[in-house]
Amino acid sequence: MTSPGGGTRFALVAGTTETASRAGISAAGADPELMSVTPAADAELVAYGSPVRTSVTPVSPSGCPTPALATRAVREVLGFDATIVDGGLAERTGAPTVSVGARPGKDIAEQDPVPTAHGAFAAARQLGQALPADELYLGETIPGGTTTALGVLRALGENGMVSSSLPENPTEQKEKLVTQGLKASSLSPGDAANEPKRAVRRMGDPVLATLAGLTAGAVESDTAVTLAGGSQCVAVAALVRHGGYEGPLGLATTSYVANDESADVRASAHRLDLDLTVTDPGFDRSDHVAMERFVAGEAKEGVGMGGALALADRAGIPMAEVRDRFATLYDDLIGDAPAATAEEGP
Amino acid sequence: MTSPGGGTRFALVAGTTETASRAGISAAGADPELMSVTPAADAELVAYGSPVRTSVTPVSPSGCPTPALATRAVREVLGFDATIVDGGLAERTGAPTVSVGARPGKDIAEQDPVPTAHGAFAAARQLGQALPADELYLGETIPGGTTTALGVLRALGENGMVSSSLPENPTEQKEKLVTQGLKASSLSPGDAANEPKRAVRRMGDPVLATLAGLTAGAVESDTAVTLAGGSQCVAVAALVRHGGYEGPLGLATTSYVANDESADVRASAHRLDLDLTVTDPGFDRSDHVAMERFVAGEAKEGVGMGGALALADRAGIPMAEVRDRFATLYDDLIGDAPAATAEEGP
Repeated sequence: MTSPGGGTRFALVAGTTETASRAGISAAGADPELMSVTPAADAELVAYGSPVRTSVTPVSPSGCPTPALATRAVREVLGFDATIVDGGLAERTGAPTVSVGARPGKDIAEQDPVPTAHGAFAAARQLGQALPADELYLGETIPGGTTTALGVLRALGENGMVSSSLPENPTEQKEKLVTQGLKASSLSPGDAANEPKRAVRRMGDPVLATLAGLTAGAVESDTAVTLAGGSQCVAVAALVRHGGYEGPLGLATTSYVANDESADVRASAHRLDLDLTVTDPGFDRSDHVAMERFVAGEAKEGVGMGGALALADRAGIPMAEVRDRFATLYDDLIGDAPAATAEEGP
Repeated sequence: MTSPGGGTRFALVAGTTETASRAGISAAGADPELMSVTPAADAELVAYGSPVRTSVTPVSPSGCPTPALATRAVREVLGFDATIVDGGLAERTGAPTVSVGARPGKDIAEQDPVPTAHGAFAAARQLGQALPADELYLGETIPGGTTTALGVLRALGENGMVSSSLPENPTEQKEKLVTQGLKASSLSPGDAANEPKRAVRRMGDPVLATLAGLTAGAVESDTAVTLAGGSQCVAVAALVRHGGYEGPLGLATTSYVANDESADVRASAHRLDLDLTVTDPGFDRSDHVAMERFVAGEAKEGVGMGGALALADRAGIPMAEVRDRFATLYDDLIGDAPAATAEEGP
């Protein structure tokens, strides 16, 4: 349904950072080259349920499908308005997008990886103020995004580790890269405390800048905000808290992120005073190949999956119905695809 | 609702042509300067129901509201997926848009007013092929668009006059301008017969090019197409027919266009073998100021209004319900606005 001037709106910010091209950083694409397509493809999946300009449905190197399928599954069952914001896309998408002037982010090891951060934050803030909604669920898709999230946390002086789309979180590699990036930006950990725009420009990515702006603008116009995701949403919350906002803020994530001991999102949510909702899609009750990869610890979250699941749960939709739709989407889009990336495929 | 991989999709192509800046050509804006904002604002109204980046809800110089309010009213009552395509916007819109590479059109009195026509046609055709839908309703918003529509018809060698957003159709001025444009493009009437891309590039606008591409692509993938509008949609149909497509094609317009004797859309629809649907919103049964302007012959159609009304009618929604919602939207958006343009205002 199209809510007259209000209701629940889901907004997805889709963008890229060259940080993702480092080997071993992300599983959000079958190989590093395909990763830059992932956000463009995720946007199409949320908007249409199938690829329109992109030719692949994103999968990890081992064949785990993008969490966009879970968000789309809930959207088809529940129905909610979805608005996609271009947070620095590197490839053309057939999804309709709102521009905030964000451009693809560079590697955080560089000195100024997100020169569009300030402009994107400002434009997103205005958009967040103006978007008609009673409540806004904000999701992200950006391969490499947990590493830039860690960069932002360290620049702000926040503790805690981020999660990963890989079953084994490459925490050491991430910390090393962040240390390198801080050095390139002449920053020590905590040097950008209370300076969120500086932190996200020097150590973050354009999606984080856009999400922080949307959040700041929305709460200014009394729209309730739930950040729909894991570690990256924690970084967004940290940016908004360091910007001086002390009011209510929700975080809705999947059980896969919440149970990731390498990250401890629960502790971060507590430190940042976030109202945490954890939803388990019950993928372990299925032996469908797409769900098995999640149960094995891949992907975990993304594209607003945790928020979409929370909306379904709140509406009383049985998770079995979400799983059925998820499986149908996977079978239609990937099940019959060439086996190139589908070592678990049929 | 969000239809899983099909159903009815409404797509709006929003763009501009400098042809609109000629005095007396269009009523799609309170003054010529504001006209370039109209499509950006219409897109926001269809997407959100209220302005987001634009600051005005479009009205004619005498205060007639944009037909976007009628389309939005149906969307709120009925609920349908809407995709907005950037057909050459000149101002930033907060609505999510798909890009096909279209840029604002120049005045058709110039030699090459739509250099992006071929590229936009090709990209829109691919989009039309890929958009998941069982049926596609295609609308437009472009001030000055009936004049460029006439340019295209003459270049193709089609007879018939176009309608107008003004109560008194400035047919003589339009013909004169088209004659001037044909001369600038070294064309005689009919010289671009069976050459739709040449006709739209030399005598049309980027919205017509985009709509023709969307239509051509959609019918190629067996998506039923209904052109939702008046004279401009007739020009789109002519472009597609001159491109060699002979299959079914719908035209859904308002009674205000169908009854405009200066244009005779019925005859054009017959010549082009279009399945015509005419819907009367019954605005004459209301004394609401916004509806009175339509009854007086202003606006008549646009932003897919005729198609939206047809969808409402087909779904059995009483027109009184559409009128109520239309009135509420008007009162919320314009009723309390400053009186600058509202000589009929409260």
